[in-house]
Amino acid sequence: MRLALWQTQGFPADINANLLALDVQLRAAAVAGAQLLLCPELWLGGYQVPQQMAALAEDADGPSAQRIAELCRSYGVAVCYGYAERHEDGQRPYNAAQLIDADGQRLANYRKTHLFGAMEHELFTPGDCLQAPVEWLGWRIALLICFDVEFPETVRTHALAGAELVLIPTALTPEYRTVPELIVPTRAVENQLFVAYCNHSGVENGLVFLGGSCVAAPNGERLGVLAGGEGLLLIDLDRAPREQWRAQFPYLEGRRPALYGALVTR
Amino acid sequence: MRLALWQTQGFPADINANLLALDVQLRAAAVAGAQLLLCPELWLGGYQVPQQMAALAEDADGPSAQRIAELCRSYGVAVCYGYAERHEDGQRPYNAAQLIDADGQRLANYRKTHLFGAMEHELFTPGDCLQAPVEWLGWRIALLICFDVEFPETVRTHALAGAELVLIPTALTPEYRTVPELIVPTRAVENQLFVAYCNHSGVENGLVFLGGSCVAAPNGERLGVLAGGEGLLLIDLDRAPREQWRAQFPYLEGRRPALYGALVTR
Repeated sequence: MRLALWQTQGFPADINANLLALDVQLRAAAVAGAQLLLCPELWLGGYQVPQQMAALAEDADGPSAQRIAELCRSYGVAVCYGYAERHEDGQRPYNAAQLIDADGQRLANYRKTHLFGAMEHELFTPGDCLQAPVEWLGWRIALLICFDVEFPETVRTHALAGAELVLIPTALTPEYRTVPELIVPTRAVENQLFVAYCNHSGVENGLVFLGGSCVAAPNGERLGVLAGGEGLLLIDLDRAPREQWRAQFPYLEGRRPALYGALVTR
Repeated sequence: MRLALWQTQGFPADINANLLALDVQLRAAAVAGAQLLLCPELWLGGYQVPQQMAALAEDADGPSAQRIAELCRSYGVAVCYGYAERHEDGQRPYNAAQLIDADGQRLANYRKTHLFGAMEHELFTPGDCLQAPVEWLGWRIALLICFDVEFPETVRTHALAGAELVLIPTALTPEYRTVPELIVPTRAVENQLFVAYCNHSGVENGLVFLGGSCVAAPNGERLGVLAGGEGLLLIDLDRAPREQWRAQFPYLEGRRPALYGALVTR
């Protein structure tokens, strides 16, 4: 699979401008032969927009999702993007990520389970489950969002459910370099799957983002990394060495779940 | 706490030679002001000695342990070392690590729970528990051995039990650079504790070891790393920034154990 990560500053609180920019990037991804484009966390309406967050929230099949589905069909490219999802009972929205395939069909809609920091806890309702992976183009794909990946339990749960690729929209600031440099490649190797991690760049209403978007392979190598700035990172995911990797890193077979009880009781 | 990691090739199947070498290293560690010396996995009798492993096994309070306790008292330095522990019912020995304090008292004896590869599975009986941390000099200390640390569940279990420092004797070959470079510092940051990882170096009966012994801090930084070769790595562990680290990386509070059920059932 050819994957495109779109690292961008975005237009805070301007959904139409972001949809226009997506149109351009999807075209570029299609021309480059990408099958799937990954966008950052809360890409649709912006991350650092606390006052407007509730107003920017949409339903999972709301007008932006419909427009994005049209673009996916038009370019023949799938999209995974972060957005604020309106809560069904009018409570605080979810910090969500949605995967829409190249036919415009929604494959998954995930609500961030591990909210980060005071602002996110004030603005959002946490999700209540780690969704099972979905299958597309023969790949088993799971979604997480930003802080989620820093907890080994999340990616492990997806690996145990057979995930081969975890897509992670994120919004990461520069003091957290450890996440793309250490934690993301560790998740890939310890779970024998690919991890794609797509961040904001630039400055959004005074909040500086790291950039540093990357893709890590099951041998712990980072297949590509962006520095700061706007960029489209194109990465070919190749599962051919899988048996060799699993022989070298036999982590899924070597687990001893009977010894791990504290992880679910404490 | 000042910690010393003794990276060494050792003398395979020659316990007396290893005890003599320990005498010298403990003296050096004491002169350098170290409180605790960490040795590699199966350091006492050697790692790559499959034919002799059963004969090299001793009880946890066997003659070598008694000699090491004398040395600890004599130099006023604690030792954590790997050895083959005789099985109480005459079955295959354990791949164990023992922590003896500066008064010569055994604080912990841990039996490796995640055995690696065909040779270890043939030679050893796996341990059946992750032992609770012990307290020494005001630090809560846990033990793991080599492959154990590559499973996030092990260090997480110790962190949830309050561990502040995990001591890890290891025997790692060069194709596993990802372990000291990525996985060990990830364990430190994701669990907010120090990890000390002490490897063999050189070549033992044809098996090449990586060296690469290191200590990682709760902010994900490696405080010191050895390349190949023999060496004594001295590292001061400073817990003073702990509140700052925990505020930056709030991983233990941010967990959602109710979502992690798959980790103990699959």
